[in-house]
Amino acid sequence: MSKLTDVPKRILIGRALRSDRLGETLLPKRIALPVFASDPLSSVAYAPGEVLLVLSIAGVSAYHFSPWIAVAVVVLMFTVVASYRQNVHAYPSGGGDYEVANTNLGPKAGLTVASALLVDYVLTVAVSIASGIENLGSAVPFVVEHKVLCALAVIVLLTLMNLRGVKESGSLFAIPTYVFVAGVFIMIAWGAFRGLVLDETMRAPTAGYEIKAEHQGLAGFALVFLLLRAFSSGCAALTGVEAISNGVPAFRKPKSKNAATTLAAMGLLAVTMFCGIIALAMTTKVRMAENPAEDLLKDGVAIGADYVQNPVISQVAEAVFGKGSFLFIVLAAATALVLFLAANTAYNGFPLLGSILAQDRYLPRQLHTRGDRLAFSNGIVLLASAAGLLVWIYGADSTRLIQLYIVGVFVSFTLSQTGMVRHWNRHLATEKDAATRSHMIRSRAINAFGAFFTGLVLVVVLVTKFTHGAWVALLGMVIFYATMSAIRKHYDRVADEIAAPEGPSDDSVRPSRVHSVVLISKIHRPTLRALAYAKLLRSDTLEALSVNVDPVETKALREEWERRGIDVPLKVLDSPYREITRPVIEYVKSLRKESPRDAVSVIIPEYVVGHWYEHLLHNQSALRLKGRLLFTPGVMVTSVPYQLQSSEAAKNRARKRQEWNAPGAVRRGPAHERAKETSSQP
Amino acid sequence: MSKLTDVPKRILIGRALRSDRLGETLLPKRIALPVFASDPLSSVAYAPGEVLLVLSIAGVSAYHFSPWIAVAVVVLMFTVVASYRQNVHAYPSGGGDYEVANTNLGPKAGLTVASALLVDYVLTVAVSIASGIENLGSAVPFVVEHKVLCALAVIVLLTLMNLRGVKESGSLFAIPTYVFVAGVFIMIAWGAFRGLVLDETMRAPTAGYEIKAEHQGLAGFALVFLLLRAFSSGCAALTGVEAISNGVPAFRKPKSKNAATTLAAMGLLAVTMFCGIIALAMTTKVRMAENPAEDLLKDGVAIGADYVQNPVISQVAEAVFGKGSFLFIVLAAATALVLFLAANTAYNGFPLLGSILAQDRYLPRQLHTRGDRLAFSNGIVLLASAAGLLVWIYGADSTRLIQLYIVGVFVSFTLSQTGMVRHWNRHLATEKDAATRSHMIRSRAINAFGAFFTGLVLVVVLVTKFTHGAWVALLGMVIFYATMSAIRKHYDRVADEIAAPEGPSDDSVRPSRVHSVVLISKIHRPTLRALAYAKLLRSDTLEALSVNVDPVETKALREEWERRGIDVPLKVLDSPYREITRPVIEYVKSLRKESPRDAVSVIIPEYVVGHWYEHLLHNQSALRLKGRLLFTPGVMVTSVPYQLQSSEAAKNRARKRQEWNAPGAVRRGPAHERAKETSSQP
Repeated sequence: MSKLTDVPKRILIGRALRSDRLGETLLPKRIALPVFASDPLSSVAYAPGEVLLVLSIAGVSAYHFSPWIAVAVVVLMFTVVASYRQNVHAYPSGGGDYEVANTNLGPKAGLTVASALLVDYVLTVAVSIASGIENLGSAVPFVVEHKVLCALAVIVLLTLMNLRGVKESGSLFAIPTYVFVAGVFIMIAWGAFRGLVLDETMRAPTAGYEIKAEHQGLAGFALVFLLLRAFSSGCAALTGVEAISNGVPAFRKPKSKNAATTLAAMGLLAVTMFCGIIALAMTTKVRMAENPAEDLLKDGVAIGADYVQNPVISQVAEAVFGKGSFLFIVLAAATALVLFLAANTAYNGFPLLGSILAQDRYLPRQLHTRGDRLAFSNGIVLLASAAGLLVWIYGADSTRLIQLYIVGVFVSFTLSQTGMVRHWNRHLATEKDAATRSHMIRSRAINAFGAFFTGLVLVVVLVTKFTHGAWVALLGMVIFYATMSAIRKHYDRVADEIAAPEGPSDDSVRPSRVHSVVLISKIHRPTLRALAYAKLLRSDTLEALSVNVDPVETKALREEWERRGIDVPLKVLDSPYREITRPVIEYVKSLRKESPRDAVSVIIPEYVVGHWYEHLLHNQSALRLKGRLLFTPGVMVTSVPYQLQSSEAAKNRARKRQEWNAPGAVRRGPAHERAKETSSQP
Repeated sequence: MSKLTDVPKRILIGRALRSDRLGETLLPKRIALPVFASDPLSSVAYAPGEVLLVLSIAGVSAYHFSPWIAVAVVVLMFTVVASYRQNVHAYPSGGGDYEVANTNLGPKAGLTVASALLVDYVLTVAVSIASGIENLGSAVPFVVEHKVLCALAVIVLLTLMNLRGVKESGSLFAIPTYVFVAGVFIMIAWGAFRGLVLDETMRAPTAGYEIKAEHQGLAGFALVFLLLRAFSSGCAALTGVEAISNGVPAFRKPKSKNAATTLAAMGLLAVTMFCGIIALAMTTKVRMAENPAEDLLKDGVAIGADYVQNPVISQVAEAVFGKGSFLFIVLAAATALVLFLAANTAYNGFPLLGSILAQDRYLPRQLHTRGDRLAFSNGIVLLASAAGLLVWIYGADSTRLIQLYIVGVFVSFTLSQTGMVRHWNRHLATEKDAATRSHMIRSRAINAFGAFFTGLVLVVVLVTKFTHGAWVALLGMVIFYATMSAIRKHYDRVADEIAAPEGPSDDSVRPSRVHSVVLISKIHRPTLRALAYAKLLRSDTLEALSVNVDPVETKALREEWERRGIDVPLKVLDSPYREITRPVIEYVKSLRKESPRDAVSVIIPEYVVGHWYEHLLHNQSALRLKGRLLFTPGVMVTSVPYQLQSSEAAKNRARKRQEWNAPGAVRRGPAHERAKETSSQP
């Protein structure tokens, strides 16, 4: 129904779309890539720097190991991409890591993955925003001077946007992501051209600094450990790769194939950018240190606490494009924007995972309803608070936050890939067709290698990063795991308790008659309506009940009752202490005691008002009484609402709330595509 | 019913008292005095100092005006006491200022008095605690060094005690109050003995300081203004005098006479102590300044910001008893304790006044129930927050807080006395008996003089203190007044809207039939119970309703339904977006559309759990659905609770909560005495 007042609006912004229309649009690959890749691609903004940072501990000479570390990251990236291409084909309904682990390895593995992913989402927000602020800060010094404040402001902004349910579109993701990718490629190409063809010397702003090695001439086991730590840091480039495996239903047909192609494209872009930036960093002699204040020396003197260490990508951009040049500014802005978009993906993923977990009763059931605003809001606020806390504790320092980051990712990689191996084993046990079998065996081999490699990396990450902060992430996982297990246990216990016994006639206390009691305070429209409704229900007995808190009022009530000739007997309970709840409860109990086989129906007239502050002014004793009555066995409690005029406002608000559109719809695909997945659940 | 486990407890602490037993005990005068007088008597701890403080502005020579100001305060005190003795006789049911003004001057005057009293209670807490901390600080320097912190700690402590409902007893009030009174009298007597008989020279610690007058040689209008300001400050001694007029029902018989006698004793004690302390302060040459840091000179040099100006009462005690002597310490402790007791009286008065205002629909109705814990808690928390805020803003400086204090007191004095004049006028119009008439005329004269004098003081206070802080108190009053008017207006509007029309048959939409709908998610005990109860109600039609959010589950439900042979038709609504609320609401609306004259009864099975965190895990969609259904006309909503085992815990908690005892019972008198008052309301 469109009202007349809608006409100008419709002329201005076109026909009203159904609120979920956007989610119904399937994504072509060119849009799917930026929608899903902002997280993994944006990590090249911080991963190369982290590698150099760790290597610097052994002095600048250790920098020459960085190409080897890049190679290791590239191999790992190809392994992970190849593995997830198998996932995408095997679970076209969009089976994320949680579902793969849950289905193939059992609920404990599933819950572990879920805990890891939840921690991961929190860290995605914290790391991406911290890094985004640092990149922005390389162009706008104010931002980096008020790092924590700005980071928290961005978190608040994203939170508000997601709470309000700002509509998404593919181009929202596409423009910054493509600008970022194009910027990085132009930088690499122009850098290569200047260096190789023009033979110019490009120098990063830190090229002239020396690094004071914390451990000069590291060798043997210590060196290997350091290289492994550097590799662990480089693995930050892999975060977010798994996102596509959740989003297959959002792709155009053939869904799995398109998703797999997009995954490959994403991997290729990511490693090219990663390697390119490392190469440029080596060429332009970027110097990074873990503690720049002490370990970076300028003319042999420590550079001091005032120094701000800019990200590698911005140092390289400065060397290639020139400080303050147009392209430098554009790249810094695009980098920050893509990082904020990456943080935003967590805002979509966290509540979505929550709703899947709620479906499996690991989280409160009400989170289960798709796109439910309240459930969504709880998830968003929880995510934002946790991320905000981390940003605040770690001073929005992306380097310190990254120490926590990679554990969760590799826990879910490893378990998901192990689950895939099981998946193929199970299918191979029944599959007869030779061609399909050989295909499956190939997939199994890829997933097995993936599981082995990511498992190895997980061990490396744990060993090299545990004391640097990975324990915080593990602690977070344990907390999530314990909470969700407890919730599941509670639901299971309740389900046992309320399970219906077999046979139709076992319930020995099935009531035989019902006494109805209408609560009356005064005679007005709401009570008259409640009386009329109560009469309709034809219970075995019906009486009106009032509590005498004020003798004068009670006398007036009795008189009016008689004068109006209301044909329901009025009973008045005494209450010397002006209480309402206790006398009613005691009366109901006495009724039950007299005839334990009967049920008591308590009918309460209620006003319905439109604003929360009006609500505070009404029905409070009714509400409390209802609360207490619910604990009394053999009772049913009926509210007969009387809608006051102001209640219209609330009705309209509720309608609006229902028309709200949950963010993240673009990534999730159309509802009917997801419905399939749900219904095919075991 | 006493359980076996109660036996050891009963042996240890005697027979269980009825929770309200204490309030049933009537107070003899010797206990009533300390119970009601802690507030007015304690004000002699700060009032004399305030007078000297203001006078110091004109230099130490102005101190010789202080006896005259004391005389003015004494005259005022006698006037107010005489006036309230009339109140006590006229309103033996305990008509406080609010009721006197409301009954005789109309609701606007009543509401003004109520607003003034509410502000006053807040300030009683703030001023008394700030002053208590300063008195304690004169013996324990740590306290005064962390003034704000200690004051807030005391507020928190009092709040917790009152929230928990610590039981009161007369001796709780009697011991500190009598120790304080005795201490002050011993000090006065010993001081007089040393000075007059032994002819010793007692010197206050500040006797050697000079005061730098801000306005030397003040004369004419400026001097009068200063004296009036000093007098206003001295009027702080009158706060709390009206308390007895609220508490007449707590007295032994003859109630009014005993209350009047106690009032007179209190007035006499207060003025004696006030004058005695002023006299001792003059004798021992106490020197107080508004800005001691700048205006107090020691050997001609400003004394500096580190100086802590101790209250007059402690300086005098030091001079008379000697610093650190036993009696000095006892008096300091008793002074602080009495001041904290005075603050505690506000904790009793504020929620009590709230409940009276709620009865007149100026505050949410639920505050009306006597001794209701929730209502009580809201009042306490509001009072404590407001007082805490003031203490924090004003740095727990009693001198600055007192500037705000006296406005409210005199607003209620003036209006109450004016109301009493009207009261006598009304009674004189009908009274024939000559003796009674002359008695009434005498009372009217006293009240008329009281109204005139307190009104004059109110003007003086407003004029002399407005810019010093009285505007804050006025602003507070305006806020209370506006809020309470708005609430009353809302209730009146609703009452109009729901007023039952005359005549039994006017309601044109009285429903003729009722359709019952039982909501089903799964088949378990709660739903089976709900079905059984629904059948008992014999509505015209009955069906079970389920929402298909998951085809597999729905199919299983249909199968089990048939297998169990449940003889209620099952209807399943489709919900592609996994929503529950919307399809149900739409279905109910469609039922109503088909037959608008019928009512729809929606029956919802609910689990009842014991802990709030369990509650979060259940019934959320049922709750939301109920919320929406209440806005749908022609619907009644029935909850059929199923008590899970864990619900026992909540039941016990609720029972305990109901056995809670509201503090302030001692002052309020027995319930049945108050009930009379309530029922005699117009």
